Amino acid sequence: MTHALALDIPAGVPWIDFTREFDAPVEAVFNAHRDPELVRQWLGPRGYEMQIQRWDFTSGGGYHYTHHDGDNVYGFRGTFHTVRDNDIAIQTFEFEGAPDEVAIEFMRFVDLGDGRCRLEGRSVGRTVEGRDMMVASGMEKGMAEGYDRLEEIVAQAAVTPSSAPALG
Amino acid sequence: MTHALALDIPAGVPWIDFTREFDAPVEAVFNAHRDPELVRQWLGPRGYEMQIQRWDFTSGGGYHYTHHDGDNVYGFRGTFHTVRDNDIAIQTFEFEGAPDEVAIEFMRFVDLGDGRCRLEGRSVGRTVEGRDMMVASGMEKGMAEGYDRLEEIVAQAAVTPSSAPALG
Repeated sequence: MTHALALDIPAGVPWIDFTREFDAPVEAVFNAHRDPELVRQWLGPRGYEMQIQRWDFTSGGGYHYTHHDGDNVYGFRGTFHTVRDNDIAIQTFEFEGAPDEVAIEFMRFVDLGDGRCRLEGRSVGRTVEGRDMMVASGMEKGMAEGYDRLEEIVAQAAVTPSSAPALG
Repeated sequence: MTHALALDIPAGVPWIDFTREFDAPVEAVFNAHRDPELVRQWLGPRGYEMQIQRWDFTSGGGYHYTHHDGDNVYGFRGTFHTVRDNDIAIQTFEFEGAPDEVAIEFMRFVDLGDGRCRLEGRSVGRTVEGRDMMVASGMEKGMAEGYDRLEEIVAQAAVTPSSAPALG
């Protein structure tokens, strides 16, 4: 089952709220944010190659990555203000094509029980106009495809152990 | 001459804008933000002792400091997303008494010529309510006194060279 990304973009304020549920344990979804080899497989829209120059998903750490679409290269970088395992990530976000338009992102990993979880996020920009430009740039498609890919990764991981024959 | 801090706190959005002019070169005001020994002498309201556990004023760096008022200790921490000499600082800001209510701060150091400059800032919180609580907590007094102290420091630095007798 696929859960759709839900976006809320209220008028007159510089933030975007989003939620996305996963049929996967909170630990698996958190780990897919922490491990750069997994991040590389899901973050961003389909059809792009992602290269990660830095991914230090810890409080005080930071990241730098590029998306490659043929000859087009899109760079992104930020700092991780707070990372708490299976709970919270607070980070900055900058698209290098719009320098100094830095957003702050709040993500909460919520355990729903029964091996399910929900990601709750808020991205706050510097201005309402900057947020609106980000929305107009096709952010929703990129996020939705990214989380669909994340779901595929954690679903695979969930299947692997139980597909082995039971022992003992 | 003292220049007053000017605050703009528009209704319904989560940010605070401020400006403060200084009769000092932009390099001196920037350096008073960069050098932890100087920061310790001005950041925050008068009458508090400041202890700096970390101050790495570079892109990707971070900070942690405490204000001491008798037995009361107030901790603050954040990351520096971007620091460009005599130009820009973009940083996160968290009061440890309100965990996870992280703001992002944009500061521009503007050279006005004639050895004068202006600091232009915007602090964007996660919510309008959180911003309003920060305003209600006496933020303006702390900022105004801090910048008055900064002005005293850069005025002293400006006087020192010319107070030496001219040679040659």
